[in-house]
Amino acid sequence: MLQEGARTELLRILGEQGFRDDQESRITHSYDGTPMLQALPDAVVYPVDTAQVSAIMKVLARHRIPVVGRGSGTNLCGGTVPLEGGVVMVMHRMNRILEVDLDNLTATVQPGLITKDFIAHVEGLGLFYPPDPSSMAISTIGGNIAECSGGLRGLKYGTTKDYVLGLEAVLPSGEIIRTGGKLMKDVAGYDLTKLLVGSEGTLAIVTEATLKLIPPPAAKKTMLAMYADLYDAARTVSRIIERRIIPATLEFLDNPTIRVVDAYAGLGLPLDMAAILLIEQDGPPELVERDIGQIEAICREERAVRVQVAESAEEAQKLLTARRSAFTALARLRPTTILEDATVPRSKIADMVLEINRIAAKHAVNICTFGHAGDGNLHPTATTDARDQDEIHRVEAAFAEIFEASIRLGGTITGEHGVGVVKAPYLEWKVGAAGIEVMRAIKSSFDPHNLLNPGKVFAKETRKRVVIDRG
Amino acid sequence: MLQEGARTELLRILGEQGFRDDQESRITHSYDGTPMLQALPDAVVYPVDTAQVSAIMKVLARHRIPVVGRGSGTNLCGGTVPLEGGVVMVMHRMNRILEVDLDNLTATVQPGLITKDFIAHVEGLGLFYPPDPSSMAISTIGGNIAECSGGLRGLKYGTTKDYVLGLEAVLPSGEIIRTGGKLMKDVAGYDLTKLLVGSEGTLAIVTEATLKLIPPPAAKKTMLAMYADLYDAARTVSRIIERRIIPATLEFLDNPTIRVVDAYAGLGLPLDMAAILLIEQDGPPELVERDIGQIEAICREERAVRVQVAESAEEAQKLLTARRSAFTALARLRPTTILEDATVPRSKIADMVLEINRIAAKHAVNICTFGHAGDGNLHPTATTDARDQDEIHRVEAAFAEIFEASIRLGGTITGEHGVGVVKAPYLEWKVGAAGIEVMRAIKSSFDPHNLLNPGKVFAKETRKRVVIDRG
Repeated sequence: MLQEGARTELLRILGEQGFRDDQESRITHSYDGTPMLQALPDAVVYPVDTAQVSAIMKVLARHRIPVVGRGSGTNLCGGTVPLEGGVVMVMHRMNRILEVDLDNLTATVQPGLITKDFIAHVEGLGLFYPPDPSSMAISTIGGNIAECSGGLRGLKYGTTKDYVLGLEAVLPSGEIIRTGGKLMKDVAGYDLTKLLVGSEGTLAIVTEATLKLIPPPAAKKTMLAMYADLYDAARTVSRIIERRIIPATLEFLDNPTIRVVDAYAGLGLPLDMAAILLIEQDGPPELVERDIGQIEAICREERAVRVQVAESAEEAQKLLTARRSAFTALARLRPTTILEDATVPRSKIADMVLEINRIAAKHAVNICTFGHAGDGNLHPTATTDARDQDEIHRVEAAFAEIFEASIRLGGTITGEHGVGVVKAPYLEWKVGAAGIEVMRAIKSSFDPHNLLNPGKVFAKETRKRVVIDRG
Repeated sequence: MLQEGARTELLRILGEQGFRDDQESRITHSYDGTPMLQALPDAVVYPVDTAQVSAIMKVLARHRIPVVGRGSGTNLCGGTVPLEGGVVMVMHRMNRILEVDLDNLTATVQPGLITKDFIAHVEGLGLFYPPDPSSMAISTIGGNIAECSGGLRGLKYGTTKDYVLGLEAVLPSGEIIRTGGKLMKDVAGYDLTKLLVGSEGTLAIVTEATLKLIPPPAAKKTMLAMYADLYDAARTVSRIIERRIIPATLEFLDNPTIRVVDAYAGLGLPLDMAAILLIEQDGPPELVERDIGQIEAICREERAVRVQVAESAEEAQKLLTARRSAFTALARLRPTTILEDATVPRSKIADMVLEINRIAAKHAVNICTFGHAGDGNLHPTATTDARDQDEIHRVEAAFAEIFEASIRLGGTITGEHGVGVVKAPYLEWKVGAAGIEVMRAIKSSFDPHNLLNPGKVFAKETRKRVVIDRG
C-alpha cells in the first residue's frame, strides 16, 4: 500500500473516481497479456487530463514512487506489469479524438483511445491509419506508441513510429514537453518524438499524440498460396520483393499453425501443407490486379501446390481474420501460450523457421511459427503449461536459443512486441554492451530516480523467466 | 595548433596522408555552405576506416580536443564550422558502397559517399533511394544523416530518417556501437538509429549506414501551374491533398524567385505571375496520367492563369533543374545569400508567405521565397551583403520575426537544414525550456565533455548572428 501522505495527495488530485487501491483493482492491474508474470501495484490511478498526469507525477517524484503507464495491457513482453509496485496509471479516461485535420491529414488523439475505434473513425472520413497490431480491437494508441506496435500492414506501410508526428508527454518530474507537430519535416533538435515511440513507458508518460493519416487504397485483393516445402514458400517471399512488388501484407503460417487456425476458424485448409502464405495487395484497382496476377505466377513458379484468390471481400476478410486469430487459436491448445517475436532480414525467413523447428525438437517443446514474412518478423509460439516447471525451463532454453539464432542471422530479439521484462536479459545480445550503456545513460537523463516503469528494458541479474509475486 | 602530444598520436594513427594542419587545410575547413561564419580548426584528419575513427576519438577524448565530423560541408546552418577549434574529421576517404542487398532491398554504405552517386548507382540496379536534398550533387550520405536532409521528394517519400535502417557509429569515448540492421521492424531498446539521424554530429560519428531502398516508380510526369494570386496557389496545394492525391513533388516559387530562376535558366516563364507551382507525380503510368489530369483540373478550378504539362522527360528535367538551381540563381544577385528553412503545417503556406513578405517589407530587406509547398517547408532567402552591417542586422531581425511567425502558425524553425549554430538561439521557441533541458541531458549522456561539434544545437548567450573568427 502507498504511504498515507502520497495516498492523500493523489486522492486530492484524482478524486474517489480516479484512485483505487482496493485488492480487486490491484490484482486486476498486476498482470498484462504476458503469461507467467505478476506483481501487485500499490494503487491504480485514472487521470482525465494532462494537468492531472503532471500533478500525479510530481507527487510520485517527491515520494519516489514508481509508476507504470498502461493502456489495455495487451502487450506480450511484461511491459505493464508493475514489477516494483507503486502506481499503475491507466489512460482509459483520456480516450478522445481531439481533432482530425483534413487539410494537413493529421489526427490529434489522447493515449487511451482504442486503436480499432480510431482506425474506423478515420476510415469514415475517407482516410487511413495503417498500423494494425493483432490486438487492435482492444489495444490503445498510447500502448501502441509505447511499444512501437507493428502489424500485418508493416511491410508496405511501416509501423507506429512512421505515423507519430508529434507528442505531448509528461516527464518524471511532472514537466510537460511537446515534440514535433503537424509537420512533415521538422529537424529542430534531437528527434524526441521517435525516441519516445517504443521507449516502453520508461522515459515519459505520453498524454497526446499527433498522427499522420494517408489516403486509403482504392482497392484490395487477398490470396493464399500453399506449399509442400517450406523453402518454396520462403523463396516466393524473396522473389516477390525481388520483382519490386511490395505487398500490403505477406504473412506466413507453418503447418502446426495451419492446423490450429483451421480447427478454430473452419476454413477447410489442406492440413498437409508445410506452409501457407497469406498475401494482400492494395492500391488502385488496375495495379492490384496486375500485382496479384504477377504474385500468383511467382507462387506457381515456386511450386505452390494450390493458389486461391479470394473471390469476395467477405472471403478475404475471413482469411485475414483467421490469420489474426492465430494467437487465440493457439492459446486453446494448452494452458500457457508464449508468443515470441524474433525478427530476421526477410531473406533469412526459411533459415530461421528451420532453426526454430530444430531448436523446438532439441528441447522437446511445441513451437508453432507464423508471422509477417514480408518484413522478417516471425512469431514462434510455444504452447505449454506454466505448472510444468520442467517443460517451462525447456521452453525458456529454447527461446534463448531462438533469440541467439535470430541475432546470428542478422536479426533482432524483438520486431514489434518490445523488450519489457521478458527480453531484457537478451537485449545486450542485439545492441552490445556499449549500446546498453548509451541507452541506460538516456534513461538516467530522463528519469534519474528510475521511477518510470522500473525493471523494464534493462536487465537485472537473472536471465530466467519467472513468475514474480510481490503479493 | 594542436598540442604536440596529441598531434604525434594522431599522425601515428593516420599517417602523413591522413593528417593536415597547414594553414591552407585549416582555412579550407574553417567554413561551410553557411554565409558569414568562420572558425579555424587546429587540424584536419581524413580517416580511412572505423578503426581509425575509434582510435582518433580515443586520442581526442584523452586530450579533451573538440571534433567536428564533416562530409562536403554543404549545410546551411553552420553545422560543420569548428566553432571551438580542434579537429575537423573529413569522411571523404570513407566513401564506398559496401553492399547492395537485392533480397532485402538495402544498401550499406560509408558516410563519405556522395548522395547523387549513390542514387545513380542504385538506379542502375533498378532501385530507388528517394532523399534528394538540393545539394545532392556534392553532399554526402553522412552529412545527410547528420542533418536529416529532406528534398523535393519529401512529401510523398519522406526524408533521410525514413531510409536509415541501421548505423555504425563511434562514440566520443571511441567505443563503437551498432544500431538497427537490415530489419524493417526492430524494437530492441531505444531507437538510437533515429536519435542519431539529425543529431548534427553532436552525439557520435557515423561510420557506416544501412539504408532502405524501394522499387522505383515506373513513370513520372511534371507540370507547372502559374497564378496571379498567391492564395490561389496555396489553395491549390490544399485542394490536391484534400482530394487524397499525394504528389511526389509540389514546389512553390514566389514572384521574385520566378524572375531570378528564369533569368538564370532561360525558361521563358511569365514574369508577372505571383506564384508558380511545380508539380511532379510518379508511379504506374495509368495512375500518373489520372493524378496529373486531376491536378490540372484542380489548378484550373483554383484560377491558375496557365497550366503547362511537360511534353518530354527533357522538358520535365529542365523544370526540375530550374527549381533546384533556385539557390544558385539567387546567389548571383548580391554578395551574400542567406537561405532559411521555416516550416509550417501545409495548410498555412499562404499565411506564411504573406507573413514573410510583410516582415521583409517592414525591415526593408529582399527576401524571395520558394520551397516544398506540399510539406509546408519554405525557404525564405535573403539576398544581401555581409559588408553592410546595418542591412545584415535588419536581415537578422527579419529572420527572427519569420521564425516567430512560423512557430505562431504551428510550425518549426527548421524543416530540413538543421539547427547548427544559426538557429540555436531560436530552438527554445520550438521545443520549450523543458525540451531543451531533455536534449541537453541526452547530449551530456553521450558526450559528457562536450567534445562533439560543440556550440551546435544548444545556444550560447547571444541571439545575434555573427562572424566568428578565431584566427
